[in-house]
Amino acid sequence: MSLDIHPFDPLKPDEISRAAEIVRPHFPGRDVNFRVITLREPPKEEMIPFLEKEHRNQPIGKFPTRCARVEVVLENKDGKHQLFELLVDLDENRVKAKQHLPGKYSYIDAAYMQKVGEACLGDAGVQEEIRRLQLPEGATVVVEPWTYATDGMNDVKQRISMCWFYLRLVENPDANYYAYPLDICAEVSEHLKVLKVYRLPTAPHERIHNEPRPFDRRRIHSQAASEYHPELRPSPRTTTKPYQVVQPEGPSFTIRGNQLTWEKWHIRVGFNYREGLTLHDIRYDGRSLFYRLSLGEMFVPYADPRAPYPRKAAFDLGNDGAGVNANNLQLGCDCLGTIKYFDAHHNTSDGQPMKMPNVICCHEQDDGILWKHTNFRTGNAVVTRSRILVLQTIITVSNYEYIFAFHFCQDASIYYEVRATGILSTAPTQIDLKEKTPYGTIVAPGVLAPYHQHLFCLRIDPALDGHSNSLAVQEAKAMPYGDPSVHNPFGVGYITEQKIIEQEGGFDLDHTKDRVFKIINENKINPITGTPVGFKLMPAYSQMLLAHPDSFHAKRSEFGKHAVWVTRYEDGDHFPSGKYTMHSVGGDGIASKISRREASGTALSVRNSDIVIWHTFGLTHNPRIEDWPVMPNDKLMVGLKPVNFFLGNPGLDVAVSTQEKNKSVLYSDEKQTDQCCRSRI
Amino acid sequence: MSLDIHPFDPLKPDEISRAAEIVRPHFPGRDVNFRVITLREPPKEEMIPFLEKEHRNQPIGKFPTRCARVEVVLENKDGKHQLFELLVDLDENRVKAKQHLPGKYSYIDAAYMQKVGEACLGDAGVQEEIRRLQLPEGATVVVEPWTYATDGMNDVKQRISMCWFYLRLVENPDANYYAYPLDICAEVSEHLKVLKVYRLPTAPHERIHNEPRPFDRRRIHSQAASEYHPELRPSPRTTTKPYQVVQPEGPSFTIRGNQLTWEKWHIRVGFNYREGLTLHDIRYDGRSLFYRLSLGEMFVPYADPRAPYPRKAAFDLGNDGAGVNANNLQLGCDCLGTIKYFDAHHNTSDGQPMKMPNVICCHEQDDGILWKHTNFRTGNAVVTRSRILVLQTIITVSNYEYIFAFHFCQDASIYYEVRATGILSTAPTQIDLKEKTPYGTIVAPGVLAPYHQHLFCLRIDPALDGHSNSLAVQEAKAMPYGDPSVHNPFGVGYITEQKIIEQEGGFDLDHTKDRVFKIINENKINPITGTPVGFKLMPAYSQMLLAHPDSFHAKRSEFGKHAVWVTRYEDGDHFPSGKYTMHSVGGDGIASKISRREASGTALSVRNSDIVIWHTFGLTHNPRIEDWPVMPNDKLMVGLKPVNFFLGNPGLDVAVSTQEKNKSVLYSDEKQTDQCCRSRI
Repeated sequence: MSLDIHPFDPLKPDEISRAAEIVRPHFPGRDVNFRVITLREPPKEEMIPFLEKEHRNQPIGKFPTRCARVEVVLENKDGKHQLFELLVDLDENRVKAKQHLPGKYSYIDAAYMQKVGEACLGDAGVQEEIRRLQLPEGATVVVEPWTYATDGMNDVKQRISMCWFYLRLVENPDANYYAYPLDICAEVSEHLKVLKVYRLPTAPHERIHNEPRPFDRRRIHSQAASEYHPELRPSPRTTTKPYQVVQPEGPSFTIRGNQLTWEKWHIRVGFNYREGLTLHDIRYDGRSLFYRLSLGEMFVPYADPRAPYPRKAAFDLGNDGAGVNANNLQLGCDCLGTIKYFDAHHNTSDGQPMKMPNVICCHEQDDGILWKHTNFRTGNAVVTRSRILVLQTIITVSNYEYIFAFHFCQDASIYYEVRATGILSTAPTQIDLKEKTPYGTIVAPGVLAPYHQHLFCLRIDPALDGHSNSLAVQEAKAMPYGDPSVHNPFGVGYITEQKIIEQEGGFDLDHTKDRVFKIINENKINPITGTPVGFKLMPAYSQMLLAHPDSFHAKRSEFGKHAVWVTRYEDGDHFPSGKYTMHSVGGDGIASKISRREASGTALSVRNSDIVIWHTFGLTHNPRIEDWPVMPNDKLMVGLKPVNFFLGNPGLDVAVSTQEKNKSVLYSDEKQTDQCCRSRI
Repeated sequence: MSLDIHPFDPLKPDEISRAAEIVRPHFPGRDVNFRVITLREPPKEEMIPFLEKEHRNQPIGKFPTRCARVEVVLENKDGKHQLFELLVDLDENRVKAKQHLPGKYSYIDAAYMQKVGEACLGDAGVQEEIRRLQLPEGATVVVEPWTYATDGMNDVKQRISMCWFYLRLVENPDANYYAYPLDICAEVSEHLKVLKVYRLPTAPHERIHNEPRPFDRRRIHSQAASEYHPELRPSPRTTTKPYQVVQPEGPSFTIRGNQLTWEKWHIRVGFNYREGLTLHDIRYDGRSLFYRLSLGEMFVPYADPRAPYPRKAAFDLGNDGAGVNANNLQLGCDCLGTIKYFDAHHNTSDGQPMKMPNVICCHEQDDGILWKHTNFRTGNAVVTRSRILVLQTIITVSNYEYIFAFHFCQDASIYYEVRATGILSTAPTQIDLKEKTPYGTIVAPGVLAPYHQHLFCLRIDPALDGHSNSLAVQEAKAMPYGDPSVHNPFGVGYITEQKIIEQEGGFDLDHTKDRVFKIINENKINPITGTPVGFKLMPAYSQMLLAHPDSFHAKRSEFGKHAVWVTRYEDGDHFPSGKYTMHSVGGDGIASKISRREASGTALSVRNSDIVIWHTFGLTHNPRIEDWPVMPNDKLMVGLKPVNFFLGNPGLDVAVSTQEKNKSVLYSDEKQTDQCCRSRI
């Protein structure tokens, strides 16, 4: 291992190919499909002393062993899919562990999915169905294969894919085919055979139907209403004048490899095929705050109860991968100012490194006023502006885009912003229906945008002044009034009450009680306030999973049941719906793990120990027509904010804002002479 | 009236002085203290046809009568305070109505408050108390007079002010005296007599105490920990590099008088002494959305139950005035880019116009990505950036600053952002207390920052495609599972249920049900979705008022009881805690009005009528030491978003983002060769 690799650094290209070379001999004579070659992050036990020495500038001594985690898929002679997971020691160039995982599947294989789509279109039965639709001349049928969300029907036995059908009326590959969902659907086997073709329900009362229906010509509508691509649209508005961010002395951050320093912050940037952007060893002003921050999972279940729609439910991390679906960000498009891009490396199916350019961008933003005070006696105002550092990654998962960004602030707070954009997944519906479809919105003639939820789970691995932390729940509570034992003579008193969580579990938000979840270090008392140092979670208030607890959706997602979870830290336990979500049947998630430990009497205390906090939040997304044909971003924000952690405002030393540096421009309203209300007689 | 005055325009300087001239003869021989000379907005009945004609470019005909609302205060020979309210017809130069309001007070009189402070410091008893404190040599005592929050003790009879005492240890008028609260307090009469001097409690078990205590020298702490003014601080951090916003072709907005047009938006900017910034006649793409948006009130009650602290409870609009306390915004400090400032005019006590420069700033901001989609088949990404228009005003109310900003977005949504900053109001506390004070945080030696709430009430006067609107409450609800009459075979189905509010009332939020408050126009059905056009409230989830319902705090604030209120529109009904909040005793607020109508059997239907929505939100602000000595802004955001109002994404025609226009810069990481982990041996 070379000197310039930090233990948290993602695998380098040569490490990826080396891992493949080490693994290959373990499957002699077999055609090995490398699905994953990624860093196995070192055990925390090894990292703690490493980081301590690193930050004290002491000699490190032995580095943690550099390991790769590898997933390979073999296809048996009978076509049966076999998944193996291997642990490769890159320091000693050997396989340390190898495990066959029957019944488990790796994440979605894009190349395979393309074959699924082709097989589907090539199938005689499908072609017959398409003919029956009597489509407009020149129209192109588009097939979108989706992973199959377990519904208890024919899962488990084999990997089945669902193919949804759409139409492109315009001869342009960027045409928005979601504007023309067709009412057929096919089930494709692992071996690329079409098992079944469904005629989809197109009215709330309808089930899968049998009579063939030709494509309803009344559905054809204006291109301007359904296209988003500029080539297919009228000229855009020209009123928006250019807006540029200029940083004449360059950005305020410094980057060495994956280590980022900015305004007293120290952050290590990580990236992997599944979670995408990960952050490690986050410190402010030399004090440890978080060991790791990452998106743990996201789940997008659809609300349409009619078969086969319940099979639409996507684990966008576990099944699709936020890393492999990350966009190649473009200078001047996805952010403004001076931008540092990070590349990542994934692997090809034959074990070669595959560069993914510009998957993360790092830039600064102005965020308005940080703090201001005007002394009303002197009239003197002091104002500072808030500069934030943004680490952003954008993923495309079929129709949807998600923009994930961590914001670091000069007041030592961190925000995690999620923006959902992209295109709604649509379904066909009859025109002239008398009844309203109660689980969807009509966004175009014959186009239903079904209700669905987006549930995100942010994994927060705290290290507030050390690794023994606790989760406290605080509520603000009115003091009793009229109780002679309590001094509250005017009925205005209120206090806070705090309880420390003792056992692993899931908890709910309650804004009516100002319920605050605080991560604290009970061993470190703030010398001024006299209370343990802490950070509080600024949650996104969201409805939890709506699917019934007995449904596969609920069994598979688990984290969607509560807004805040706390568990004891375990190496590699990054996934609140389990490591293998593809075709999962439940029992692998965060709740099951906790219950199993409870049932076996080994329930873990989470007080004053190495804990992980999981925050579930999201959108109950009942589409608006304004989300069509491409959705203006829907923004969610989660924060982590110091509470009696420091000795005062961490941004107190930010220099005051001056025109000399900011060079703003006064608007000259010469046109103002042209007054309104001229029409009065 | 001149042709260039729009009926919503604030009074012009000459109108202010003219109104005073018209009023003065009505108080012959009296010394008239003009507290308010402000626009009486025209009745909506008159404005509706006016606006219709205006937007159709039709001849207006008769303009609504231009009226001023005037408040004057007289002092009787016996020193008794008398408040009069007058309505002045500026078209006919006459007083149309004159009313004496016994027992009511106008908002705070800064000149009078200064006299209160001086009288307090000049009082022999106060001086004796100060001598007993044995203050450090060279220290300056600072008195901060506050309005008296009704507590049932000696209110109503006369206007009493509370004087809180602080110390400046540094000889600089900008020193932060809140770092040294003293444990005395004085009550000053209307006639500037000190009625009572209290020795304040300094421990949770303590009541008003009698033994004099000298100032505890152990409280004296480092200047760096308590000062925010740059003159009194060590040099600031120098790591933050300049960041400038350049708009080479100027801003995208056009301003004619108070009429603002920007990106399909039409807005009229208003301003008055009390609410500060108000917005009128808000339209998007020619369609009417809101008749008026304004902050209706804010209330800041403190949680310390010990007398006389329950008298700390500020109506920052009703008692202080968001308009008169608006900051003079400075170019390059309070915002970036090309900035238009609006001036306002208030009146002096002798009825002359008083210019308040730069009380509103208007500028554009980049707000990240508006929408993006990458076609995964072609790899083609289309991305647009979100530009927003910001109308901002900042107020200083003694220790605190509030930054109020309306954000207009290209997707036809509006956000209202509140940032709280400034300095905590502090109280003295003993050093070495064994017990934690349960309603405050120690932020410096001997300095308690008491818990308090900030409750804001945003008044939303909708006009969605007309003035007959309704408020609907929608919830997302799982479909029954296992009920044979409902088709939900996999337990994943969910629907929305909507109820339209029939009667005036207050309602609560419930994120667990995804409860959405929608303003709809039942008379306008979206031709695609088949549902009424609407806008939804994106609320700020907040704890409501904690004070006991029988307390004066609760009786006086009322709007703090529920998060969403709906009432029938009434001209001039802008204030959810009543028009006169100073020394109010309750019964003037939104709940009382509704109950009175209910009790008298005249409860108003709010369905399909001219309604007003009031959203209460805020902070239960239990200070952190990080809020000290000046508070990094605490941000709250409320939104209004179209729901099936348009025919698609209103920002669909925004041009795609290009480097050619945005001119971003690639970060060159030459320094990257200097790698980490060098210390390894």
